[in-house]
Amino acid sequence: MTGIKRTTEKNLMVLSGRAHPALAEEVASGLGIPLVPTTAYEFANSEIYVRFEESVRGSDAFVIQSHTAPINEWVMEHLIMVDALKRASAKRITVVLPFYGYARQDKKHRGREPISARLMADLFKAAGADRLICVDLHTAQIQGFFDGPVDHLQALPILSDYVAEHYGDEELAIVSPDAGRIKVAEQWSKRLDDAPLAFIHKTRDINRPNQSKANRVVGEVQGKTCILVDDMIDSGGTICQAVEALMAAGANSVVIAATHPIFSGEAVEKLRGSSAREVIVTNTLPIPEEKRFDKLIVLSIAPLISQAIHEVFEDGSVTSLFDLNR
Amino acid sequence: MTGIKRTTEKNLMVLSGRAHPALAEEVASGLGIPLVPTTAYEFANSEIYVRFEESVRGSDAFVIQSHTAPINEWVMEHLIMVDALKRASAKRITVVLPFYGYARQDKKHRGREPISARLMADLFKAAGADRLICVDLHTAQIQGFFDGPVDHLQALPILSDYVAEHYGDEELAIVSPDAGRIKVAEQWSKRLDDAPLAFIHKTRDINRPNQSKANRVVGEVQGKTCILVDDMIDSGGTICQAVEALMAAGANSVVIAATHPIFSGEAVEKLRGSSAREVIVTNTLPIPEEKRFDKLIVLSIAPLISQAIHEVFEDGSVTSLFDLNR
Amino acid sequence: MTGIKRTTEKNLMVLSGRAHPALAEEVASGLGIPLVPTTAYEFANSEIYVRFEESVRGSDAFVIQSHTAPINEWVMEHLIMVDALKRASAKRITVVLPFYGYARQDKKHRGREPISARLMADLFKAAGADRLICVDLHTAQIQGFFDGPVDHLQALPILSDYVAEHYGDEELAIVSPDAGRIKVAEQWSKRLDDAPLAFIHKTRDINRPNQSKANRVVGEVQGKTCILVDDMIDSGGTICQAVEALMAAGANSVVIAATHPIFSGEAVEKLRGSSAREVIVTNTLPIPEEKRFDKLIVLSIAPLISQAIHEVFEDGSVTSLFDLNR
Amino acid sequence: MTGIKRTTEKNLMVLSGRAHPALAEEVASGLGIPLVPTTAYEFANSEIYVRFEESVRGSDAFVIQSHTAPINEWVMEHLIMVDALKRASAKRITVVLPFYGYARQDKKHRGREPISARLMADLFKAAGADRLICVDLHTAQIQGFFDGPVDHLQALPILSDYVAEHYGDEELAIVSPDAGRIKVAEQWSKRLDDAPLAFIHKTRDINRPNQSKANRVVGEVQGKTCILVDDMIDSGGTICQAVEALMAAGANSVVIAATHPIFSGEAVEKLRGSSAREVIVTNTLPIPEEKRFDKLIVLSIAPLISQAIHEVFEDGSVTSLFDLNR
Amino acid sequence: MTGIKRTTEKNLMVLSGRAHPALAEEVASGLGIPLVPTTAYEFANSEIYVRFEESVRGSDAFVIQSHTAPINEWVMEHLIMVDALKRASAKRITVVLPFYGYARQDKKHRGREPISARLMADLFKAAGADRLICVDLHTAQIQGFFDGPVDHLQALPILSDYVAEHYGDEELAIVSPDAGRIKVAEQWSKRLDDAPLAFIHKTRDINRPNQSKANRVVGEVQGKTCILVDDMIDSGGTICQAVEALMAAGANSVVIAATHPIFSGEAVEKLRGSSAREVIVTNTLPIPEEKRFDKLIVLSIAPLISQAIHEVFEDGSVTSLFDLNR
Amino acid sequence: MTGIKRTTEKNLMVLSGRAHPALAEEVASGLGIPLVPTTAYEFANSEIYVRFEESVRGSDAFVIQSHTAPINEWVMEHLIMVDALKRASAKRITVVLPFYGYARQDKKHRGREPISARLMADLFKAAGADRLICVDLHTAQIQGFFDGPVDHLQALPILSDYVAEHYGDEELAIVSPDAGRIKVAEQWSKRLDDAPLAFIHKTRDINRPNQSKANRVVGEVQGKTCILVDDMIDSGGTICQAVEALMAAGANSVVIAATHPIFSGEAVEKLRGSSAREVIVTNTLPIPEEKRFDKLIVLSIAPLISQAIHEVFEDGSVTSLFDLNR
Repeated sequence: MTGIKRTTEKNLMVLSGRAHPALAEEVASGLGIPLVPTTAYEFANSEIYVRFEESVRGSDAFVIQSHTAPINEWVMEHLIMVDALKRASAKRITVVLPFYGYARQDKKHRGREPISARLMADLFKAAGADRLICVDLHTAQIQGFFDGPVDHLQALPILSDYVAEHYGDEELAIVSPDAGRIKVAEQWSKRLDDAPLAFIHKTRDINRPNQSKANRVVGEVQGKTCILVDDMIDSGGTICQAVEALMAAGANSVVIAATHPIFSGEAVEKLRGSSAREVIVTNTLPIPEEKRFDKLIVLSIAPLISQAIHEVFEDGSVTSLFDLNR
Repeated sequence: MTGIKRTTEKNLMVLSGRAHPALAEEVASGLGIPLVPTTAYEFANSEIYVRFEESVRGSDAFVIQSHTAPINEWVMEHLIMVDALKRASAKRITVVLPFYGYARQDKKHRGREPISARLMADLFKAAGADRLICVDLHTAQIQGFFDGPVDHLQALPILSDYVAEHYGDEELAIVSPDAGRIKVAEQWSKRLDDAPLAFIHKTRDINRPNQSKANRVVGEVQGKTCILVDDMIDSGGTICQAVEALMAAGANSVVIAATHPIFSGEAVEKLRGSSAREVIVTNTLPIPEEKRFDKLIVLSIAPLISQAIHEVFEDGSVTSLFDLNR
Repeated sequence: MTGIKRTTEKNLMVLSGRAHPALAEEVASGLGIPLVPTTAYEFANSEIYVRFEESVRGSDAFVIQSHTAPINEWVMEHLIMVDALKRASAKRITVVLPFYGYARQDKKHRGREPISARLMADLFKAAGADRLICVDLHTAQIQGFFDGPVDHLQALPILSDYVAEHYGDEELAIVSPDAGRIKVAEQWSKRLDDAPLAFIHKTRDINRPNQSKANRVVGEVQGKTCILVDDMIDSGGTICQAVEALMAAGANSVVIAATHPIFSGEAVEKLRGSSAREVIVTNTLPIPEEKRFDKLIVLSIAPLISQAIHEVFEDGSVTSLFDLNR
Repeated sequence: MTGIKRTTEKNLMVLSGRAHPALAEEVASGLGIPLVPTTAYEFANSEIYVRFEESVRGSDAFVIQSHTAPINEWVMEHLIMVDALKRASAKRITVVLPFYGYARQDKKHRGREPISARLMADLFKAAGADRLICVDLHTAQIQGFFDGPVDHLQALPILSDYVAEHYGDEELAIVSPDAGRIKVAEQWSKRLDDAPLAFIHKTRDINRPNQSKANRVVGEVQGKTCILVDDMIDSGGTICQAVEALMAAGANSVVIAATHPIFSGEAVEKLRGSSAREVIVTNTLPIPEEKRFDKLIVLSIAPLISQAIHEVFEDGSVTSLFDLNR
Repeated sequence: MTGIKRTTEKNLMVLSGRAHPALAEEVASGLGIPLVPTTAYEFANSEIYVRFEESVRGSDAFVIQSHTAPINEWVMEHLIMVDALKRASAKRITVVLPFYGYARQDKKHRGREPISARLMADLFKAAGADRLICVDLHTAQIQGFFDGPVDHLQALPILSDYVAEHYGDEELAIVSPDAGRIKVAEQWSKRLDDAPLAFIHKTRDINRPNQSKANRVVGEVQGKTCILVDDMIDSGGTICQAVEALMAAGANSVVIAATHPIFSGEAVEKLRGSSAREVIVTNTLPIPEEKRFDKLIVLSIAPLISQAIHEVFEDGSVTSLFDLNR
Repeated sequence: MTGIKRTTEKNLMVLSGRAHPALAEEVASGLGIPLVPTTAYEFANSEIYVRFEESVRGSDAFVIQSHTAPINEWVMEHLIMVDALKRASAKRITVVLPFYGYARQDKKHRGREPISARLMADLFKAAGADRLICVDLHTAQIQGFFDGPVDHLQALPILSDYVAEHYGDEELAIVSPDAGRIKVAEQWSKRLDDAPLAFIHKTRDINRPNQSKANRVVGEVQGKTCILVDDMIDSGGTICQAVEALMAAGANSVVIAATHPIFSGEAVEKLRGSSAREVIVTNTLPIPEEKRFDKLIVLSIAPLISQAIHEVFEDGSVTSLFDLNR
């Protein structure tokens, strides 16, 4: 055949936006490589400029950005990086989202609302993303919003192993702070010797965001160590009210466990001041020094992401590593 | 300006596949028009042939098919009808799905599975659908699977009004048959004077479909009339085990309420033989004579769909009619 | 360059739906590999579930399904398998269609009909197919329905070699059962020493499917061994009427040769009872035991498909292997 | 509702490229309107410039171009006009193709060929076409190449009515010049009292385009007036050889009827010098004065196209007007 | 024809994001209608929530947002509004961009950069935009980045009419602050009696954004009133250095005229402290009180946008209103 | 893992249309390989036929065509070649455009015009192009018209090195023939010791293409060797008028340098008869013998293209080779 023949090589490259560089560096370090040197800054009028300082042509590129506040800033930077990778001829672009922004707007709660979680998937597709790697999506259905492969990693083993080690000798109950998350609590229960379940029956007024009024505890918590589980802690209102409701219902103590530490508004004050015995989270989002407090435990998600990138690059099975049902 | 000017007219047309003609006729009748005459049959080798016997050019077409068994047959017929409408120059094609097939495969439960609910949305888009009208999707996130407007109708008011009228004087508890549907139970509670919630804590073995083992009742049901709510009744196993678990836990009686009567396998036998006091469903799916039984109540969903089509055609607000949070 | 370099490998994997496993196994066996272990079944409500039991990440996947009756069942299973492969990160997905369903609806015969053969191509594209391998499409133009590469294999050499070997000493005429397939007969003629052509001039009433009335024989068949050729035998009506018309016109004997043995309805009875001397087909579609009969000869298409997959995987030339005009 | 309400109007506008203005003017005139004034010319380097001299915003635009030689020039002008309409906010763009260029390259005859007829459909789609109106496509399957509605008009009634009127008293045979077009001959037969069919069995050497060697006449033509039918007359070689073969086989006379008068190369000389009694075509392509000759009859296709545009604009049924099977 | 016929109506609705409500209100007011009431706010974690308080079903929606700082915030809000309109069944969505964010990143200045201006066009398309209305794009080629109609309005008549009225009696020179914008200066010259042109030959160090060093004045400015024209004033550095260069070169006085007052960083201080006699801009971007200063003249762009929306809605000609070459 | 494993190879293949085979052969020769043997010709009716005589399956294909007159012919051939490559399973298709046709129609100069340069990008995308390699686009923004990677090569170093070598000792001025191209002149200035800039202030009547009237020289040219630079020389009118204007303004001599020698109409006569001292171009377009003249210097662009193809194939950095700002 006419032409020049070469054995094909592939080159794994990890890139990071500016939202949470510490995590990206830990992920790259777990893979034994440095991050691709990247210039990124704002122009005076707040437009973002990005340029990679090294050729990415033909690479298998993984571009990490955690959608922390100011979220629109970091989402846009993420999109711009994907566009730059596409135009610089990266061979495959995997968007790594330790925290997927706008995940909670995953349906129309009322008429004439956006479905922003689907919009995010469409925007990354339009920019040039081939695949996604996510951690603990708010609802697993968000996988179906992206037109392409999605690897959905779960922090539950990391969190529940910690709980088993530190609280395994006590009598546990797994509690969901609201009716919509009991499915997650059920998964916790499975990993912790079928511990009994409970949840807080509350009503949330959708016209007043970030507010809620806690209600009756449904299920038995009397005298138990309650593991109060959720996917994220945002303003902390719901979860702290749940703590108090559980204590009022006779719980022995309450330990909070959640994957994503958003910690917006007064969250830290509320958590610090609550009756919670310990607050366990991962570092999918950056937690600045001033938001750290005594009873906060931060477990690293970086090894999980490094492993997933490694498996994706080597065409290994991500599922077999992280599947809860293996 | 050069040319021929005309005032634009729009023409509402309703078409139906062969899965559930009675519902389609009731819907059309509610709009005061007949269904578009349509030829549809199988060739000897089981390929489906469809042809409309009347021009649909320029029409605002609503094509109804309920995805009952044999589901693949009816989905394919539905897709072929959409293709025929597109090629016959219908102006806008709205796919009406009283029951959305494959809705439960809305995420990867394990690796290497399809997300068939997203696939359905993609197939209808590829065939030429502009919009969807659905009733009580298994998860509301499925709205976000389709790239276009989705009107999501809810049967809850129809079902709960019936319950309020017939059981409103008794002491009620709203019960979810598993941990994943308590959100729906919560909506019922809101419409029924904040009735208390309960759920069944069970485990489902994903390797053996349509089987489940019921477990502890979480929440107070002693002496109460339990309204056991779900979006669908498929093989009936889960729901009937829940009935017995509730009775064992001291419930006064159990009434089942669900939107979609799939009634596959032994469902009817199980329901008829169960301790349930009444089984309330809608007619989003056809229920043949031999599957009807004494304590079964079937409420019609047709008026809701007729109204929705009317509002969509007239550019009215579907949300204001059906929104639970109005 | 920053990053991890690896030599790229590719991995050929063959998967099969449940429509015609014997053919898929023969194809895989011809390649020296087993089929990828796959779980597939129907839920009670007839929805199909599929899961691959082995990682397919990064694979060059060939997914085989023959669109036999119940055709909509198998088409949908095929689509679901493609979706699962896409979401499981297969690198390239080739859909292998020994028999392409709905191929005869390749144009609008009248207004307001679908073009289902194009719809099929669009559905497979929407699900995630990158390429197609087909055998003897009803019309070659169907290649152009798919937006991507299509390898179009031809069974003619297999069939005509058999005819040449068994009937080569007799005086042959090549006969088309209707006016639309004479082009195929012409190709047969080229491979069989420019044997003379004939066809049956009949009219088909499009309002009554699968029925036809045979007419005059056009061309000389007196005293000849007629090779009656077609791409498929469906209900067998047309072809059996053609046999009798040829015998009535003085043919010495009639041998039927066709690629696709659909054999729907009364086909087998008609063929068995006809004056045909032999019926030669391939196994692109499954032929159950009860549909086999004495004068039926089944030639295997599997080696052709195996070779084609091998060439596609190795970037060889499929054309040079199978092209009739080489 | 907030906003400004207006009754919607639609405005039919007809535009034409420079390939065959006489036909476009006749079409517009049949609709009672002038063509939209358009500036179009080549720059010195042969790039085409187009601008409409009147607003087309919101219009229902029909843009006519017949793909005559130099075909690439006119296809590109056609595409540029569609792009200009799209960017000038035409509401709907219907591409009218009295002759569809590259229609014969509708499949891969051998490996590594384009499917240019599909490419044409894709290019018009990419430029912004919403729908097509075509006349007598080389194969009806080309309808399926375009992703949208296609109205496929047929000149057969125009041509066959002329034949019936002028030759209806003679004993007719319908003849196809090759094996691939007998289906069309069959349609002619249906409209002309089931006249008998015949065809020319010839072989075409695909390595030497526009050449062919005629062969045996298959079917009875002795003493008959042969109506030799085809979709187009290109270089005229095949058709003229067919005339002589028919005369040699004892035909009384031969009348040629074809929709598209391409008349390339020596076509006119060959036709004029042949034994054909009359050559009947339509004006889907321009026939300059120097290509007209005594026994040439040109029937106008314009009324058919005008009617079709009228029906499309008014949402009437094109099928009912032109369908052969009504 | 079966069905319900209605005369079609269209409904113009104007919506606004929160970036520059004063302009949107002025635009709506020019059309005689209020803005559609809209709820929009940030959640605690900085995600944006949007909901329209009125049905937009079937509307011809114009959604205005000016991309001022914080630009990523407002772009994302704009995208979310478009998504909400799409899902709420707006019939046509026109995105109105008085200032198009990221317009200056309209090409790769060096390798591995994004083309963010194209990305913006793609993001709005992905979200559901049908058309764009823009004002004075940084380069006119950006029109071609969007796959659909773009109406490109020009502020030049507004600005130059003001200049003609106030400085028409003086001896003018039109000056471009750099080599890349002389084309714009040329357009000014045409409207101002062919006033002579000049430009500043400077070099910009692309590694240090928002900085530049002015150089030689090319062209005659001695004793003249220089109109220094540009499309935007960002940090003001370039333009103020140009002012001083012109004064040093003997200019009588310098008047600055630009469409978009970005006024980022120290822009206002620099302008106020410069030798410029007057600074003329439009209100395409909001100018807060603290950024207004004595010699600043702000002309309103709202009437131009109102007229354009009116013409688009009524299918009138935007070009004829605003075209500089009429 | 089940399956057959192979190390992946890639195969660089270079293909050429018939517009400028000499350049393509020089490019292939620079890479040390022959062009892929290709059959291409016109049918009698001017349709183009293309077939590759060798398998291109799995190849990394670079298909070169220079858009010279007759431009529509060569663009269409280029598109057909891309379609054939796609359907023949080329792995990646890079379209190489030494001269990009219709590049000047890169915006709407007035209403109701096409943006043909964007249309070109869309057509190549629709045909199957994955990437583009271009030389000196008329405006760099055209890079953003294509949805994929574009490598934009610059001939400036080749041209300016020649100028430096031959005219470096003289006192130079860099002159742009119109206001729109001074940015290019500025780049020349940077490479030639910051030589002073000048431009011709002229008006171009857009209603009369290829005509222009030169005006005042802006900038100092007295006694200098003017390097008159442009991206292309089309009909030569503008550039020759500029030469005379410069001589009239006291220039010592004028040397013309441009990348693309379109040389349409009377260009050669005008250039030969002008006062220009030398005319320097590259061979991005073919220059037939009869268009060559004494003072014409043609520098080869082939080494630049060969290098770029090599780097793209080897995943090297094109930017680092050709970037002016390195």
